[in-house]
Amino acid sequence: MAYIQVPDHVPGIRSLVLFSPETGKHLYDLAQALLRGNSILSAAEKELIAAYVSNRNNCLFCMSSHAAAARCLYGDAAAVVDQVLDNMTQASISEKLKALLHIAGQTQQSGLAVTENDIQFARKSGATDEEIHDAVLISATFSMFNRYVDGLNSFTPTDPAEYVPMGIRMAEKGYVPPTAPVAQ
Amino acid sequence: MAYIQVPDHVPGIRSLVLFSPETGKHLYDLAQALLRGNSILSAAEKELIAAYVSNRNNCLFCMSSHAAAARCLYGDAAAVVDQVLDNMTQASISEKLKALLHIAGQTQQSGLAVTENDIQFARKSGATDEEIHDAVLISATFSMFNRYVDGLNSFTPTDPAEYVPMGIRMAEKGYVPPTAPVAQ
Repeated sequence: MAYIQVPDHVPGIRSLVLFSPETGKHLYDLAQALLRGNSILSAAEKELIAAYVSNRNNCLFCMSSHAAAARCLYGDAAAVVDQVLDNMTQASISEKLKALLHIAGQTQQSGLAVTENDIQFARKSGATDEEIHDAVLISATFSMFNRYVDGLNSFTPTDPAEYVPMGIRMAEKGYVPPTAPVAQ
Repeated sequence: MAYIQVPDHVPGIRSLVLFSPETGKHLYDLAQALLRGNSILSAAEKELIAAYVSNRNNCLFCMSSHAAAARCLYGDAAAVVDQVLDNMTQASISEKLKALLHIAGQTQQSGLAVTENDIQFARKSGATDEEIHDAVLISATFSMFNRYVDGLNSFTPTDPAEYVPMGIRMAEKGYVPPTAPVAQ
């Protein structure tokens, strides 16, 4: 049960945004701009970075939901999502994406853990400033979401099947803040 | 020097927001809603939590700037800011604020580090759901800002005097996204 009084049975961040819509609106707008805005990285790749960071932070809700969104967006190549969550270095993805995931992993530990060598390695594999920026900001943002969701012990479904429709909704509709149910 | 091409001599997050205004706008809007919105905690207390978390993340830019804002907002009681940064448990602040800073410190480590006992202790010292929520979200948000600023190695002034006018601006004007200088 969540540590604060939030609507029953509403999972993860949605319950917290119903508790605090003023901040919640900006959290959703940030997720939409960051994960669905125009960029060199595809929406699938950005959701994959989000799931990878959430997995490293042991945030079951964010890992499961963003992995589900990534599987949906990758379509026929969905197997790469579980490969990355299992062992990123052995996954069937480009060297560039591996270098960006490495930077995201360093950022997840601490901003100060990202080194000039990590950046140079990413550049040699073809990464641009924009992609490096996005990898760092996605990792930083999910270091926030993960702490928000787990720090308040929000409701986290444990059945993986419950995340499948959530992933489809996130892939198809993006990030729209929830609205409170109308009282009957 | 920052790892990506940002405007010269623009410090910290402002340089990154000039690089990526689409996401930057929402980061500033979030900071404004969270640190200046109506709440039981004062703006001074919220800036203090931000500085405390940034100090624990060794983010010199965010610690220095938010400590400067907190000193400005605390006015005659500004000494508590340095007391908290030095040793929070011995600072001249309420037991409630100590309990909220403790929750923020746990959240800084990991969302999963916040325990039912931490929450009960805060409630016994008078904290409400809203204050517990804000302590967790401020800590989560600065775990993001700290990683963004340091993960991209943005320009961090080392002279403490440079943060004084920054703190005054933050205390008086709040969080307004920077706009790019007009080309001459």
